[in-house]
Amino acid sequence: MTSNEDVVVTDRGGIVENSHRVHVAVVDAKGSLLYALGNPTRMTLARSAAKPAQALAILETHGFERYGFDAADLALMCASHSSEERHIERTRTMLSKVRAEEADLRCGGHPSLSETVNRSWIKQDYTPTAVCSNCSGKHVGMIAGSRAIGAGVEGYHLPDHPMQVAVKRTLAELCDLDARDVEWGIDGCNLPTPAFPLDRLARIYAKLAAAADGDDAREDPSARSTALARIFHAMARYPEMVAGEGRYCTVLMRAFKGAMIGKLGADASYAIGVRASDETRRLGADGALGISVKVEDGNVEILYAVVTEILEQLGIGSPDIRKQLATFHHPRRVNTMGVTTGGVSFPFTLHGFTPDGANLVSRP
Amino acid sequence: MTSNEDVVVTDRGGIVENSHRVHVAVVDAKGSLLYALGNPTRMTLARSAAKPAQALAILETHGFERYGFDAADLALMCASHSSEERHIERTRTMLSKVRAEEADLRCGGHPSLSETVNRSWIKQDYTPTAVCSNCSGKHVGMIAGSRAIGAGVEGYHLPDHPMQVAVKRTLAELCDLDARDVEWGIDGCNLPTPAFPLDRLARIYAKLAAAADGDDAREDPSARSTALARIFHAMARYPEMVAGEGRYCTVLMRAFKGAMIGKLGADASYAIGVRASDETRRLGADGALGISVKVEDGNVEILYAVVTEILEQLGIGSPDIRKQLATFHHPRRVNTMGVTTGGVSFPFTLHGFTPDGANLVSRP
Repeated sequence: MTSNEDVVVTDRGGIVENSHRVHVAVVDAKGSLLYALGNPTRMTLARSAAKPAQALAILETHGFERYGFDAADLALMCASHSSEERHIERTRTMLSKVRAEEADLRCGGHPSLSETVNRSWIKQDYTPTAVCSNCSGKHVGMIAGSRAIGAGVEGYHLPDHPMQVAVKRTLAELCDLDARDVEWGIDGCNLPTPAFPLDRLARIYAKLAAAADGDDAREDPSARSTALARIFHAMARYPEMVAGEGRYCTVLMRAFKGAMIGKLGADASYAIGVRASDETRRLGADGALGISVKVEDGNVEILYAVVTEILEQLGIGSPDIRKQLATFHHPRRVNTMGVTTGGVSFPFTLHGFTPDGANLVSRP
Repeated sequence: MTSNEDVVVTDRGGIVENSHRVHVAVVDAKGSLLYALGNPTRMTLARSAAKPAQALAILETHGFERYGFDAADLALMCASHSSEERHIERTRTMLSKVRAEEADLRCGGHPSLSETVNRSWIKQDYTPTAVCSNCSGKHVGMIAGSRAIGAGVEGYHLPDHPMQVAVKRTLAELCDLDARDVEWGIDGCNLPTPAFPLDRLARIYAKLAAAADGDDAREDPSARSTALARIFHAMARYPEMVAGEGRYCTVLMRAFKGAMIGKLGADASYAIGVRASDETRRLGADGALGISVKVEDGNVEILYAVVTEILEQLGIGSPDIRKQLATFHHPRRVNTMGVTTGGVSFPFTLHGFTPDGANLVSRP
């Protein structure tokens, strides 16, 4: 085993059962690394944690206004939703706004991320279709964007389609990377999905939060920062659109009441943007703060636990707020007879760095 | 990241998505370590991979004969079954053989390990009860054993009950360990579950296979080796009782037609016993061979892939046999539109050791 410094451990009766390596980057909007764990520059497939960046590319086509989308629609574009009725209904409405049909979508149906929804689907012998995809909002957004730039809807999901070329450029710019330094795979929903150093994911979310701050403070913000602020506010205002009942992202954003956005990526990545406060400044941030996390083995239950632990170690949010996340932080490990068999522990402390980066961990 | 020597990697478009640390021990029945990966002496909760050892303790109470159990019942005692109708029916029959009722069981119901079974339960609004526990056979066995030693059924699952004291002694003996060197937690099914060095799990399975060999070869084997041989033959003959339709253990044992037993433990441990053959001797075994595997993070899909890879690297079984495991070895990673998004790779080679152990890896 590697050292215990960058792992989350589960035990059974005090005996180590599993351990999970964890990578964390905490940065401000300028990208300064304030805290880290594991490898904060791990090349990481951000998956759905990149959705706000994809939504930015859509906003910048002006397809959003042209087709009359609203803030809840924008939240759904950034969502990995639970395929609840409200999510599917909104997807259908968005499709009609852009004068498209379900058959135009290039994502497929899949079991819901909510066990409650799955049970009801099984009971009804219902086979989920494209509008049920947890990424349906993003796909309708891509159709709107494609129409707005006159590129046609056909093949909107393909890497060389003008809409995806715009996404690639926008994503690299948000990361402050050359486009050649971002790698791309194909996502579960069939759109291109980017990989880049983990700390850049935190930087994107710090920029989202900083834009929300600037949105309040400045009279004439840039078009991009206005768009980033819209995304932040949409997610914070409609957390139930971003995930669903009982899901971590929804519970987290409800608890923080607009001070924070958080988004899951498949295979256990997570990103958080925190608006500037005494808390963020105490942590050394120049204003807003971004946090990104990747569990090396893709375990999402462990991801939620460790994200909550990081918020606690950083002192972000009051004890009352964090109490609302307690079941994610210390999930009950009980057996089929209700007996507690063990728990989850966090034998690490985030490494803090001086402002000049003198204590920066060695990069592999 | 640690070195790539002891990990399984999943990728998306050639980009590393997740990696999983793996520990492996390959031994013969005398316990000589022949091949290893990661930490072959990792203290590991064997979970259900320890069931054959628990079944041995039951056989040695003579409760098995007293209550008229047969070989398929013995296979079910060693099972983590899928709660298929045949498993539940056999559990009920076993309960009646030992004149007990479902209410005597100290395990609880849980979702089936088979998605097909779960779907049918949900459709019928069926709530699984104790007879549906994947460990139901073992629990009825514990009741039979408790009765046979005159200890009473009440509290048969508790660590200090004479039946569990017998299990502890038997398990330590099989591991060739002092009982104080085995640790115990509480399992998902509410019975005590042991932790011991991973290579000792391989040793237990090598002993099971060696006993099956001896069973054929010797005229007067010891009572224990006869019992071990019975367990091996029961599992090999009734693989559908040990797991269920489509499950790895069942497919593996069917493919090897009596030459091998294999058993899953929850949180991704696995153990295999291989009867002596030219293959095992070529690998340096003094007769039969045992293999044990633990995926550090508990991922069972990765476990099945890596167990199959290990069989391939060791050259155990013909290509025709291993072809039956191909979907476990290289699970299809396709998205919701059926597009292949990546795969699983094994950037490691098992470390082989000389017979005198000269190349033994350092033990932590």
